[in-house]
Amino acid sequence: MSSPAAPHRDLSRLCIHTATTKPWPVETAMEKYAAAGVTGITVWRDALEGRQPARVGEQIRACGLEVVSLCRGGFFPSTTEAGRQQAIDDNRRAIEQAAALGAPLVVLVCGAALGQSLECSRSQIIDGIAAILPDAEAAGVKLGIEPLHPMYADDRSAINTMAQAHAACDRLDHPLVGIAVDVYHVWWDDTLPAQIALAGETGRLFAFHICDWLTPTRHLLTDRGLMGEGCIDLRGIRAQVEAAGFQGHHEVEIFSTRWWESDQDAYLAQITAAYLDHA
Amino acid sequence: MSSPAAPHRDLSRLCIHTATTKPWPVETAMEKYAAAGVTGITVWRDALEGRQPARVGEQIRACGLEVVSLCRGGFFPSTTEAGRQQAIDDNRRAIEQAAALGAPLVVLVCGAALGQSLECSRSQIIDGIAAILPDAEAAGVKLGIEPLHPMYADDRSAINTMAQAHAACDRLDHPLVGIAVDVYHVWWDDTLPAQIALAGETGRLFAFHICDWLTPTRHLLTDRGLMGEGCIDLRGIRAQVEAAGFQGHHEVEIFSTRWWESDQDAYLAQITAAYLDHA
Repeated sequence: MSSPAAPHRDLSRLCIHTATTKPWPVETAMEKYAAAGVTGITVWRDALEGRQPARVGEQIRACGLEVVSLCRGGFFPSTTEAGRQQAIDDNRRAIEQAAALGAPLVVLVCGAALGQSLECSRSQIIDGIAAILPDAEAAGVKLGIEPLHPMYADDRSAINTMAQAHAACDRLDHPLVGIAVDVYHVWWDDTLPAQIALAGETGRLFAFHICDWLTPTRHLLTDRGLMGEGCIDLRGIRAQVEAAGFQGHHEVEIFSTRWWESDQDAYLAQITAAYLDHA
Repeated sequence: MSSPAAPHRDLSRLCIHTATTKPWPVETAMEKYAAAGVTGITVWRDALEGRQPARVGEQIRACGLEVVSLCRGGFFPSTTEAGRQQAIDDNRRAIEQAAALGAPLVVLVCGAALGQSLECSRSQIIDGIAAILPDAEAAGVKLGIEPLHPMYADDRSAINTMAQAHAACDRLDHPLVGIAVDVYHVWWDDTLPAQIALAGETGRLFAFHICDWLTPTRHLLTDRGLMGEGCIDLRGIRAQVEAAGFQGHHEVEIFSTRWWESDQDAYLAQITAAYLDHA
């Protein structure tokens, strides 16, 4: 094992996902984050509903925040041709939104379709990303494949390990296609240090998401922990990511019914404290 | 992908875990299983409480059933020396119980301890199994390492993939140490076909457990599906297991609050039907 990273001294690399403080509209989130000293924001597409992405991007920058990425594209597999085409069209819109927003990256939750094999879904993911690459090139937007925890292999992603994400990147072989590493999905993998190092060597380390794994976990989707509440070796993994040359934001992405039901101002204060104490 | 296996023509390889029909005491389970044409039973240790394992073994054989394995040993890691010794002592008792019961195999859920790294837990698992190997030799009982789904890496098992189970077997290098393959834990892994083939080549394929993965899964521990209710490619994996030379029982191991709350006689009928239709 490598040595853990040193504690953060400030919030200059801290980004928060709008989905983390889901009760807040994006306008509230950006103001609150900026006031708390957070420097980056990742915008979820539901937060853009009824708004012009370009205008939201301006507002975010006026707050002094950087737009780190747009979440999320993906969900390419489908058992029908029409479904696959719909997904491609939707991902094209995501790329347009990202460009308008000023987000350099669209994170891809790649998808998996019940009723067909994982191999088939993986092949459709490759085809789907290949289909939107011209749009990504035209917009200058990167695409980050996020390997999802194997407990999501049924219907959320057929790409469940860093090794599979690398294999997809190898197949696509394009500088705009890389990997979004979320500790929640990959912390258990004993090959993680080698895979992160490889992501650094190949220039594919596009994003770094943090949260924690709770024991017990009461819901597969919405029971993530705040950094320090769980068992993930956050500073150990951060040391690997930094050793691989990553200099981007550390993005707090927490889906948690428990935290969403709490006072969001107090929660934001706990996020920044937990970032300094545990991440 | 290899071709899926042909449907079963009979129940001659069907084994059921007592934990699958948990509401039944072991005496009821063995009678009902035998009456339904099931040929094997795997006994969970809680089912032996207040009973003499040797006597239960005699009863099972008198019903015409084969004792396939005892579940479960393991849980070796602990942050304390006393905790690790307790685990070793408990696993020695499990081996004694298996020998008395007439079970040729103890299945190991290897354990993971919060508060230490997964590497450390894996090392303690190796040490724990090494410590009980003389007991296993004396009793002539095999030990089956069961890789557990990565969603159990926090506190149930630090061995989460077939590759890690093979690595543990390599370290221990003993003919009594092998692998119990449970489709629930490994179905998502794209290296599974190669890992099962390797288990066959190395004589390590000790057990094969079946059930299904539900979408959505509502509880991490107790929401498994009956074969055919979910998305696991059961016949595809069985074809791999059979191609690797496995000739043992197919063990139905389903933890399900929903099924436990249902009528157990009707459930048993559904298990045998699902085995023929989907496994």
